[in-house]
Amino acid sequence: MKNIFYSNQLFVSIRKYSLLLLCLIPTAGIKARVEQGKTPVDYVNPCVDTHKSRWFYFSSASRPYGMVSLSPDTWVKGGWNSGYLYDSTEVRCFSHVHCWQISGVPVMPTTGEITGHKGMEVYKSGFSHDTEIVKPGYHQIILDKYGIKAELTATSRVGMHRYTFPQKETANLLFDVGALLGDGAMEKAAIRRISAKEIGGYAVMAPTSRRKRTCTVYFIAQFNRAISEFGGWEKVDKDKQLTTKQALEGEDIGGYVRFKRLGNAPLLMKVALSYVSEEQARLNLKAELNHWDFDRTVEDSYAEWNHELGKIQVEGGTEQEKIKFYTDLWHALLGRHTYSDANGKYTDHTSDIPKICQVPLVKGIPTRNVYNSDALWGAEFNLNILWSIAYPKIMSEFVSTMVGYYPTGGLVARGPSGGNYTFVMVGDQAIPLIAAAYNKGIQDFNLNDALAGSIKNAEPGGIRDHAGYETDANKYMTHYIEKGFVPENIPGKGSHREGCAMTLYFAYQDWCLSQLAKGMGNDSIYRKYYNRSFNYRYMFDAQTGWMRPRTQDGSWLKDFAPIGKGFNMPGFVESNAAIFTYYVPHNLPDLIHMLGGKNTFVDKLNQQFEWAAPYNFISPHGQHAQNWVDYENQPSLHMAHLFSHAGAPWLTQYWVRKIKQDVFGDITPYGGYNGDEDQGQMGALGVLMAIGLFDVQGGASTEPRYEITSPIFDKITIQLDNRYYAGKEFIIEVKNNAKENVYIQSARLNGQSLNTYYFPHSELIKGGKLEIELGPKPNTAWGIE
Amino acid sequence: MKNIFYSNQLFVSIRKYSLLLLCLIPTAGIKARVEQGKTPVDYVNPCVDTHKSRWFYFSSASRPYGMVSLSPDTWVKGGWNSGYLYDSTEVRCFSHVHCWQISGVPVMPTTGEITGHKGMEVYKSGFSHDTEIVKPGYHQIILDKYGIKAELTATSRVGMHRYTFPQKETANLLFDVGALLGDGAMEKAAIRRISAKEIGGYAVMAPTSRRKRTCTVYFIAQFNRAISEFGGWEKVDKDKQLTTKQALEGEDIGGYVRFKRLGNAPLLMKVALSYVSEEQARLNLKAELNHWDFDRTVEDSYAEWNHELGKIQVEGGTEQEKIKFYTDLWHALLGRHTYSDANGKYTDHTSDIPKICQVPLVKGIPTRNVYNSDALWGAEFNLNILWSIAYPKIMSEFVSTMVGYYPTGGLVARGPSGGNYTFVMVGDQAIPLIAAAYNKGIQDFNLNDALAGSIKNAEPGGIRDHAGYETDANKYMTHYIEKGFVPENIPGKGSHREGCAMTLYFAYQDWCLSQLAKGMGNDSIYRKYYNRSFNYRYMFDAQTGWMRPRTQDGSWLKDFAPIGKGFNMPGFVESNAAIFTYYVPHNLPDLIHMLGGKNTFVDKLNQQFEWAAPYNFISPHGQHAQNWVDYENQPSLHMAHLFSHAGAPWLTQYWVRKIKQDVFGDITPYGGYNGDEDQGQMGALGVLMAIGLFDVQGGASTEPRYEITSPIFDKITIQLDNRYYAGKEFIIEVKNNAKENVYIQSARLNGQSLNTYYFPHSELIKGGKLEIELGPKPNTAWGIE
Repeated sequence: MKNIFYSNQLFVSIRKYSLLLLCLIPTAGIKARVEQGKTPVDYVNPCVDTHKSRWFYFSSASRPYGMVSLSPDTWVKGGWNSGYLYDSTEVRCFSHVHCWQISGVPVMPTTGEITGHKGMEVYKSGFSHDTEIVKPGYHQIILDKYGIKAELTATSRVGMHRYTFPQKETANLLFDVGALLGDGAMEKAAIRRISAKEIGGYAVMAPTSRRKRTCTVYFIAQFNRAISEFGGWEKVDKDKQLTTKQALEGEDIGGYVRFKRLGNAPLLMKVALSYVSEEQARLNLKAELNHWDFDRTVEDSYAEWNHELGKIQVEGGTEQEKIKFYTDLWHALLGRHTYSDANGKYTDHTSDIPKICQVPLVKGIPTRNVYNSDALWGAEFNLNILWSIAYPKIMSEFVSTMVGYYPTGGLVARGPSGGNYTFVMVGDQAIPLIAAAYNKGIQDFNLNDALAGSIKNAEPGGIRDHAGYETDANKYMTHYIEKGFVPENIPGKGSHREGCAMTLYFAYQDWCLSQLAKGMGNDSIYRKYYNRSFNYRYMFDAQTGWMRPRTQDGSWLKDFAPIGKGFNMPGFVESNAAIFTYYVPHNLPDLIHMLGGKNTFVDKLNQQFEWAAPYNFISPHGQHAQNWVDYENQPSLHMAHLFSHAGAPWLTQYWVRKIKQDVFGDITPYGGYNGDEDQGQMGALGVLMAIGLFDVQGGASTEPRYEITSPIFDKITIQLDNRYYAGKEFIIEVKNNAKENVYIQSARLNGQSLNTYYFPHSELIKGGKLEIELGPKPNTAWGIE
Repeated sequence: MKNIFYSNQLFVSIRKYSLLLLCLIPTAGIKARVEQGKTPVDYVNPCVDTHKSRWFYFSSASRPYGMVSLSPDTWVKGGWNSGYLYDSTEVRCFSHVHCWQISGVPVMPTTGEITGHKGMEVYKSGFSHDTEIVKPGYHQIILDKYGIKAELTATSRVGMHRYTFPQKETANLLFDVGALLGDGAMEKAAIRRISAKEIGGYAVMAPTSRRKRTCTVYFIAQFNRAISEFGGWEKVDKDKQLTTKQALEGEDIGGYVRFKRLGNAPLLMKVALSYVSEEQARLNLKAELNHWDFDRTVEDSYAEWNHELGKIQVEGGTEQEKIKFYTDLWHALLGRHTYSDANGKYTDHTSDIPKICQVPLVKGIPTRNVYNSDALWGAEFNLNILWSIAYPKIMSEFVSTMVGYYPTGGLVARGPSGGNYTFVMVGDQAIPLIAAAYNKGIQDFNLNDALAGSIKNAEPGGIRDHAGYETDANKYMTHYIEKGFVPENIPGKGSHREGCAMTLYFAYQDWCLSQLAKGMGNDSIYRKYYNRSFNYRYMFDAQTGWMRPRTQDGSWLKDFAPIGKGFNMPGFVESNAAIFTYYVPHNLPDLIHMLGGKNTFVDKLNQQFEWAAPYNFISPHGQHAQNWVDYENQPSLHMAHLFSHAGAPWLTQYWVRKIKQDVFGDITPYGGYNGDEDQGQMGALGVLMAIGLFDVQGGASTEPRYEITSPIFDKITIQLDNRYYAGKEFIIEVKNNAKENVYIQSARLNGQSLNTYYFPHSELIKGGKLEIELGPKPNTAWGIE
C-alpha cells in the first residue's frame, strides 16, 4: 500500500512526540496544540479507557483487523484486566496475539543473565508513560530495568521489533512461549533454532470453557544479525531449568537467543504468525515483510490506518470529539483479527481432526480473509450498520467467515475462535448480519450455504439450542416451536439460559431470516419465519406492561420486577425487563401499540431515560440488572433511537446526543466506554451516534434504511466502496451545529426536502448529500411519519 | 455487449446471403466467394455433419452457452437422430431447449384452421434449404405449407421470433407444450393467457433413465400486438379436443394464440425461459431483451459470438480449414447450456423437494452461471485444455457447477442435468477438471468443497461407485481399495460397468486428486491418492502386453483379445484393450517401461495407427470394440500424442495432422465429426489439433504444460483473459507451413530456442510468442526429452 499521507520519515518522529501528549493530557489543554493537516491516525488515542481492559481491548502494533496484535502486556494471566493496563507500572512481555480466547508468542528483551526460566515476575521491567509513544501501528516503551528502548510495529501477519540495548550489554531475547497469557494456558509449546538468523516454534493453546478444542499458533522469528547463543528452559521435576538444547518441546518450555554486544546498532526482529503451520508463518513473512526497514513499516502502518480510518472524514466538532471519533473507529477496525494466512489457508477445528481449509483465489490472491471473532451479540446496533455503510468488504468477509463453518461443522458460526464455535452468549448472531449484508447488496458470499445454514440454525439442533457455552444442543427451540416461547429453568449446564430474552432474540432473528429469504425470493421460507417473528407477543404481560418470563406451564414467573440487583434479572440475558421490553426491533408499531400507543410509549420510555440519567445511562459491568437504560451493554443500545418511531424524533435527538457525550465522551485513560468496549462494538456505536445514522432494525429489512439523528460534526464525508456501491461518496452537511443545538430543524436529501426521520440505503449508496439544519429547540413538525 | 464488428444493419443482410452458400456449397466453390474482412461468425457453418444428429448437437438461435437453444426441429421424439437433421424435409416445430436430457417449449406458426390438437405429423410443414439461412444466432426458414417466413434469434435466456405471414391469412401460433421432443415425455404441461400480449406456462419433463427426477421449464411469451383469440387443446377421453379455456393444465395439453390479419407487418414474439418459475422467466426477459428490434438482437448475437470465437484468431490455412476451425470452436462454446437465471437463481433437484439456489452476487450481478451439462467423460483431452487456455472463466463456472452439487447432494456432480446428477458414463469426471483449473491458477471457486467433495467421490459411496445411471452406490471402490483393481461382473443394474476401464480411470483420477491436494499444500491427501494412482499396474498383463480385465479372484479374464466386435470388449467402456492399454496419462514413463521401452512402445503404437488408417481411425458409433484406434470416442483421443512421450514427436506430428484432416476435415452436412460430437468435446479437440497444443495429462499436474504439434495455420493469436492471467495474448507463428510440411524443424519460445516438445502453462499465461518452423521431413533431433 502506498503511503499517501507522509512524504518523509522526519514527519514520523515529529508526530510521535505530539501523540505522546494526546495520551496524557486531558481535553482542555489539547486545542492549543493542534497541528495543521492532521490525519485520522493523529487523532487516535489508543490509551483511552485503558485503566481497565480486556485481553483483546488494546493493541498498538496492529494493522486493521490484522492477524498480529502486538503490544506490551503490563499484566497477563486472564481475559479480563489483562493486556495493557494504564495504571500498571511494569511490562511483563510483548506478546503477539490479543484476541478473543487466543493469545501467544510473548517476547521480552533483557540484558545480563538469562532469567527466562524464573518467569515474568522476575524478568518484568518498570516503565514510564513519560517515555512512551503509543499510536495505531507503533509503540515505543523504555524498559527501565534494562535500559532497553523497545519499539514495535507490524504488518498484518508479522510483528516487527526494534530493540536498542545499552551499548555494553549482551542482548537477550526471551521467548516464554509456554507461559499463560490471556484466556487459557498453553498445553504445550515448542521452540528451536532453525538457522543462524532464524528460530521457530509453536504454542498449543489448551481448550477453554468457551473454545472447546486446542488451537495452535505457529511462529517464525528472524533477526537482522546472527544469533550468538540459543538455549531455553524446561521442566525438570518441578523446577524449570536452563538448557542448551537447540530444540525444545513440551509443557511450560521457553527459549532464548543472545547476541553479542550490539553497540549503537539496534536489534531488529520479525515475528510471523500462522494458525496453520510454521511453513505458512514463513510464507506470511515472505508475503508481507521482505525488508528490514522498521521506519518504513511504521509509515506503511500509518498509511494503511489512514486509508481505512479515512473512509469516514469529519470536519468541525471539538478536538476532543475528533479524537474520540477516530479512537472509536480505530476500535471498530481493531477489535477482531485475521485468522487466515496470506495465501488464504486456515485451520478448521470443528471436528476432532483439524482440517486445513483454503479460501478461493483470484490470480493466486485470496478473495477474502477469515476472522477470529467474539460474539456478534448486539452487533445489529453497531458493527453491522457501520460495516454496511463504509466497510462492505469487511462485512462480506465476516459473513463468509460465519457461513464458512456451516459446511464443516453443520452450523453457521457464533463467535468463532481458534477455528471453532465458541457458543458465546445466545441466539443466532450471524443471521442479522447475513440478512443485512444481503439486503444491502453485499451478496458475494455463498448464498446457498447462508440460507440453508441459517434455516438449520433456526430449528431444533441449530445454534439457538446452544445457550452460552453449551456444547451439546439443548431444547430451547423445541419449546419455542411448541409453545411460541422459551420458558425459564430448562435443565442445562450453560450460561445465559434466560428464556424471555431468548424468545425476544429468536423472534427478531426469525424476522431477519424471513427478510433474507424474502430478499432472495424464497417465498415459503419467508412466510414461515415471518409468522414466527411475532412470538415476542407471548412474552408481553399486559397487566404489568413489561416483557415477563414464563414458566414451562405458561404461567408468568413470580416475584417479577422490571429492574433489580445482580448480574441479571431472571429471564433476561445480562439485563432486565425494563430494557428487554423494548427488544422488538422488527415490529415497533406493534410494540408501541401493546404499550398503549405512541404517547404512552414515549412517556414510559422517556421516564426510564430520566431515571437512568443520574447513573450516566449505564450499569456497572457485571451488575446488569439495576438500571432502566444501560448503554454499557448490548440489549439497550437502540433505546434512545426508539422515540423517532413513536412520533417524537426530537427526544431521540436529545438523548442520543446526551449519551454520546455523557457515556462515550471521555478521551482519558479513565473513561470513554465505561465498561466493556467489546471488540469494536461500542466504538462502532460511538461512530454512528457521531455521524447521526442508525437503524433499529439492524439493516436486515428488504428495504433497509438509515434513521437520522443530529450529527456532532459539521461535515461528514463517507467514501463508498465501489466494489459494492455505485456512488463515490455520501456527504452529510450540518448547518448551525453547536453544543446546545441538538435538534433537527429540517433536512434535505440531494436537494429535496426530507421530512421523514429516515432515508433508504438505496439513496446512500448512490452517493449524494444529506443536509441537516440544527437548532436549540425541537421542531416537533419534522420527522413525524 | 457492444457490437464491435458491424457498423450497420445493412451489413447483416448481406452476410445472411453469403452464409447461405456456406451451408450448401462444398469446399471447392467457396474460395472464390471469400469476402474481405470476414469475422469468425462468417466462418461458422452450423450445418456441418447435420445429416445425423443428437438432440443437443445443433442450435442456430443461441448465444455461447446460452440457456435458450432455439432451432427448427425437423424430427422429434428422442435424443438420437432428432432435432435438426439435414436430410429431413419437414419442420415439425421450433423448440427452445436442445440440451442433455432436457427439452421444451415448441412453437409452430400456421395459417388457417387450428390444427394443434392433431399433432405435429399434421401441422408440420415442408421447407427447402434453398430459402434457408443458418448462422450462429440467426435462422431463417420458409414454411412452404403456410407461406410463412420464420426467423429466429436469441439472447441467452430469451428466444426471439419474427414471423412474416401471408397478407390475407389469420396468423396462428401453436404451443404444443405437452408434446414429446427430445429425451423423455412431458409429464404435465400448462399454458394460460396472462394479458392481451402475454401468455405463460410450463412443462414438467418426466424422469428419464438418466435424469431420475422431473425438471420443469417455465416460460413467458410476449407478442408485439394483441392476441385476438386464445385457446388450446386437452385430452377428452382418449382424444385431444380444442377448447376456449383461457388456462390449461394437464398431460398432453397445448395452447394457441391467433392474431388478426397482419398485412405486411411481421409478428414478433419473445419467449423467455427459466427452470425456477414463470416469474423468473419474466425477469430473464426484462433483464435481457427490453426492446422489439429483431435485427438488433441478431446483430448482438453475432457480436457476442464474434467476441467469444475471436478469442482465438487464426491466419493462413485454407478457407475450408478456417470454416472447420470456427465451426469446431462454435460447437465447443455451444454444446452445453446455461441452467441458472439472469439473477443467479437455479433449482437443485438432488433431493425430493426442489430447492431454489442462488449464486453469489456482486452489485446484484451473479458472479457466475450454472450449467446443464452432459458427461465430462474424456474432457481431460479436449474441453478442459481449451477452456484453460482461452476460456478460464467458463472453466471456473463449470467447476463451480460441479462442486455446487456437493453441499446439496453430497457428491461433486457428474453430468448434471435438470439440476440433478445423471451418473452418465463412469468415474469422477469432475476431478480432472478441478485439478487442472486449480493448478492453472483458476481458483475462484469453493476450494474447501472442491477438495472435500472430491475426496468423498474417491471413496466408497462416492460418485465412482455409481457406474452408468446407477442411482444407488455399488461396490466398485470397495474392491478397488481392497484389491487395487475393480474386477469384472460385480452385480449391478447400471451400464458401462467395466472393471478394467474403471480401474484405469480411477488411477488417473486418484492422481488428479493428488495433484489438487499437492497444489493446495495438503501433503497427507496428496500422498494417499498419489500412492493409489499406481493401481493401473494391476491391470497390465505382461504375457499379452495389454491391459486385461480380471475376475474377482484376481485371475485374468478368459477369452481375451485386444479388439473384437460389438459395443465394447468385456472390461472396457465403449472401447477395447487395444485402446485402453494407453490410458495411463499420468505416468507414461512407467507405461512405456511396462510395454518394453520407448522403441517397442513406438512400434506397437505406430502399428495400431497403421492398422486403423484404412478405417479412418474410427469405429462406427455403437461399434466401439473393433478398431485399434478410435477417434470417434473419448478413450482414444490422446493416442496420437503419445509418440512425443516415447521419443518420437515426429510421429505425433504426422498422425495428429492426418487425423485432423481425415477424421475431422469435412465441412459438409455429411461429415466433420464422424459420429458423436458430444457437446463440444470433438469440436474442442479439433481446435487443439489445429493450433498444435495438447496435454495428455489434461492439465491436472501441479506443473501443467502444453505439448506442441504442428499447427495447421500460419499464425494463431490467443487472447488471454486478464481476470486470471497476467499476459495479454499468446501468439503462435508458423513458418514454412504447407500441407506436406507436417514436421516441426525447430521452435522458439519468446526468442529462446525451445528443444522440448512442451512448454509450461506458466509461460503461456504470461503472454508471448511461440515460433515453429515446419518442414516436409522429420527433424528427429527436435523435441527429444
